[in-house]
This record gives sequence, structure tokens and C-alpha cells, in this order.
Amino acid sequence: MFIAVDWGTTNRRIYAIDDDGAVTATLRDDRGATAVSDYPAEISAMRAQFGDLPVLLAGMVGSNIGWRAVPYVRAPAGAEALAGALAEVAPGVFIVPGVSWQDGDRADVMRGEEVQLLGAVASGAVAGDALLCQPGTHCKWVQMAGGRIARFTTAMTGELFALLRKQGLLAAQLGGAVENGAAFRAGVAEGARRDLAASLFAIRAAGVLGLRDDADAAAHCSGLLIGADVAARLAQADGQVVDILSDPALGGLYQTAVEVLGGTARLHDSQTAFLAGITRIRELAQ
Amino acid sequence: MFIAVDWGTTNRRIYAIDDDGAVTATLRDDRGATAVSDYPAEISAMRAQFGDLPVLLAGMVGSNIGWRAVPYVRAPAGAEALAGALAEVAPGVFIVPGVSWQDGDRADVMRGEEVQLLGAVASGAVAGDALLCQPGTHCKWVQMAGGRIARFTTAMTGELFALLRKQGLLAAQLGGAVENGAAFRAGVAEGARRDLAASLFAIRAAGVLGLRDDADAAAHCSGLLIGADVAARLAQADGQVVDILSDPALGGLYQTAVEVLGGTARLHDSQTAFLAGITRIRELAQ
Repeated sequence: MFIAVDWGTTNRRIYAIDDDGAVTATLRDDRGATAVSDYPAEISAMRAQFGDLPVLLAGMVGSNIGWRAVPYVRAPAGAEALAGALAEVAPGVFIVPGVSWQDGDRADVMRGEEVQLLGAVASGAVAGDALLCQPGTHCKWVQMAGGRIARFTTAMTGELFALLRKQGLLAAQLGGAVENGAAFRAGVAEGARRDLAASLFAIRAAGVLGLRDDADAAAHCSGLLIGADVAARLAQADGQVVDILSDPALGGLYQTAVEVLGGTARLHDSQTAFLAGITRIRELAQ
Repeated sequence: MFIAVDWGTTNRRIYAIDDDGAVTATLRDDRGATAVSDYPAEISAMRAQFGDLPVLLAGMVGSNIGWRAVPYVRAPAGAEALAGALAEVAPGVFIVPGVSWQDGDRADVMRGEEVQLLGAVASGAVAGDALLCQPGTHCKWVQMAGGRIARFTTAMTGELFALLRKQGLLAAQLGGAVENGAAFRAGVAEGARRDLAASLFAIRAAGVLGLRDDADAAAHCSGLLIGADVAARLAQADGQVVDILSDPALGGLYQTAVEVLGGTARLHDSQTAFLAGITRIRELAQ
């Protein structure tokens, strides 16, 4: 048995996992990397609750805003490479490294998503050469090859949406819900024109001129940003199916966007993928 | 003689203009629309300083965050149309209306720029069928026809840059100066790929992996945003020269971007254009 933590910036999920890979307990709270300063104390609390077990940590806990900045493993990287590069930060406590990619002057980084991506392959949910999409504040688009993370691109789609909702010209119009409906789909089609600065201002103009109900503006804006993201990826995807690892809400939006733009997408639960990945890494590390 | 005010959101420029169109006095301060609540008092102060003269106001003073929301004049619109639609908000005090454009479900609005645009034509600085670019927080791209504003697109390029510098993932890296140099030009070339969400995250990755000095990140980011904006416009411009109305710094950046992307641009002083425009509107209104 071991404890696994998917330790993000603003929240974390803790799992107690038995030797068959089954989850015996799970806890989700908002003690993300930015809320925690005494990591040994956090580990003690987990062991008090779930048992004096080995602990595997993944995510921003391994960055310079977390417990310790663990060096990236460079792509192509599979579960074996990550298992061989675990950083033992305390007795029996290991941090899974993130993955970097570089090709000439193009480069990208991930920290945390690697576990879900490799888990989706390890569990057989996706093929070893799948095109994976993990949407969120920073959406990861990952080409797998031979079961490894081969290359990837991160689009800060979710963060742009959050910034625009929070302040500036459009903020007052973007308070509505993002429903996966007609306004979202129209936004996707507009986003595929890949002229974000103009399409975003047009939300203001449409509001001022009474051409769109502000209740639909957030959905349209989300469609715009997700549509531009998906359009750029599909242009390079050569007809590949997009395997989306996500929660159902955001995954559904990305799936709709892929379909509006002529592609095919399948949804997979990201939590299941995380568990498969961390279990595989644990197996390989023993 | 009359008083003209280019009254923006965060600052204003006041001009005393004689009957030959020459400026006899000018004052610039930060009493923009958001800082002012007692407009009649502001007018009294101007008249106390420059004389009891007619006053023409342009810009956000004519919006719902200004003195009075003056209805837009719909494109195509020339100086005659604007002169015929001045709103007299107090004895001898007139607000120049903004311009809207609509074509099917596409629409855009401007308030204040119309004076500079029509002035550039009125002064002969640009042709009556010019493609004009007025960069800023909200960059206006305007197709003139027969000396009138025929259609236009607004790109919120400057605002996106400001939002990204202020908070979020990239803010810490974007404190450097935006020099019109190699980092800016490389950003323009990247921006022309029109994949902003990915190109923006790459600034983070490049910083984390030590591939670009953070001192160059702001220039690269500015190039990205301006490059994406210019690329979208040039794709529709059919080889037209871009006539830029701007201050020299921002205008220079846009001119460089146009040239990096294979186009031709000419710079024109926006203040000169404003004066020519407001004088022309004044003439036509008398």
C-alpha cells in the first residue's frame, strides 16, 4: 500500500492505494502548493490518517513554489524514466519529476500531467501513439509514441479566460455560465479564425450594439478561446482522434470544439488515469 | 477660435485652435473620463483659461462612462455625417459621435478615433481609400473609402498585453522594456503563427528552461501580440500599404511588425491627424 498525492497549485487529491492498485480512501482539499509551507507536517498528517506508508507526490509540489524543485526529465519520457528519477525528499517520500521537451528553439514543460498521460496508456484507455489533450488553466496537448510522452504543446487557454473574466474591458460581460450550447459552438467557429484580439473585442461591440445577450457572452468567449486552441492543434494533427483526459464539464467543451471543427474526440476520466499512472510508476520504482 | 478636447478614458488633450486651424495652446493631463464627474466645471475651467469659446469634445466623453452617451453614427461615415450629428450637451459645447459598423452578424465600434482617421484624409496625409491602423489598448484597423470610414476591426492587442503584464503566469517575466529589436521581431514571427495561447505559455517554458533572458520576454510578448494582430489584418489587406496613425514608439513597433510580415507601412502623427479632423468637423458644423 502507498499514499499518492496529486498536488496542484490551489488544491490536492490524496489517495490511499492498496497493492492491487485499488483506492481505499481519497481526500480532496484546497491545501495546494501555494497554501502549504510545512510539507513534513503534511506528510505526518497523511500517515497519521492512512498509515505509515510510502508516499508518492506529483504536481507543483515538485516545483520552486512547492517542496523542492525537482529537475525535469526530458522527453521522450515513459513511466520507466520517471520511476528512475523519483526524488526522495524525506524517508519514503518521493516526488515524481515533471517532463520537459525541447526541439531547436521550441520548448515546453509540464509538472503533474505526466502521471495522467502515462496512466492513460498504462491502463489501456488510449493507444501508445495517441494524441492526448488535458484541458485546464494550462491545456496540455501531448503526442504519445511507443507509450511515452514524445512531444507536447501547452496552451494557456484557461488562464486567458480567467484573466479576461477578472478585469478589463470584457469582465463585466463575462459573468454568465459557460453552457455547452449554441453560444459556445458559435464561439468555437469564430475562434477557429485564430484572430483572438479582434474576436475578443467583438464581444464588447456585440454587447454595446445589443447584438448578443450578455448572458451568452461567457460561453461565446470560452468557445472563442477553446476554438482557437483546438483549431491550431487540429491543423497539425493529421486526422488523429483526440483523446481527452479531463473532468466531464471541461472535457465536454473540448470534445464539442473538436467536433465543431471537424475532428473526433473521446473523453477519459483524468482521475482514473492519474491512479493508473501513479500505480505504474510505483511498481517500476520498487 | 474654438477649444477641442481629445477626451480619453485615462487622460485628455485640450487644444485652443484659431480660425486657421493653428493650435495656440495645448494642455495634456490625466483627467480622463474615469477621473471626471463634474463636466460643466471642467468646461468652465477650460473657458477661464482659453476664452469663452465653442468647445468640441471627442472620445470616451461621449460614452456611458463620460458625460453623455451619444449615439453612434453608422459607417460608412465621413466628416459631414459626424458634423451633422454633433450632440450639444451644454450651450456651445458639442460632443462628436463615435462610429459603429455592422455587416450581418459582424460589428464593431469606435469612439474618438474617428476624428484622427477623418483628419488624416482631410489633411491629405493619406488617400481617401487608405487602410489605416491606429494602435493602442484597442487597435483600430480601418478601411477608408471615398474619404469616409467604410468598415473596421478592433483588436484588443494592447489590453491583452497589459493584462498579461499585470497578473498571472507571465507577469513576473514581463517587467522588461519593449525595445524594437531582435526579441520583438522574433516575437512578431512567432505571433504570425496565430496560436497565441501556446506562444504565450512558451514564454514561461523558455524562462524556466533558460532559453531566453527574461529581460527580452516583454519585447517578445509584445511582438507576439502585435504580430498576431498584424498577420490577421495583412491576410485580408491584399497588398495595401498600411497607414499608421500613432505616437512614434507604438507606431514604430507596428511598422516593424508589418515589415517583418512582408508588408509596407507609413507612419503618421496621430495628434496632427486629430487637429485636422476636429478642425474639419468644426468647419462643416458651422
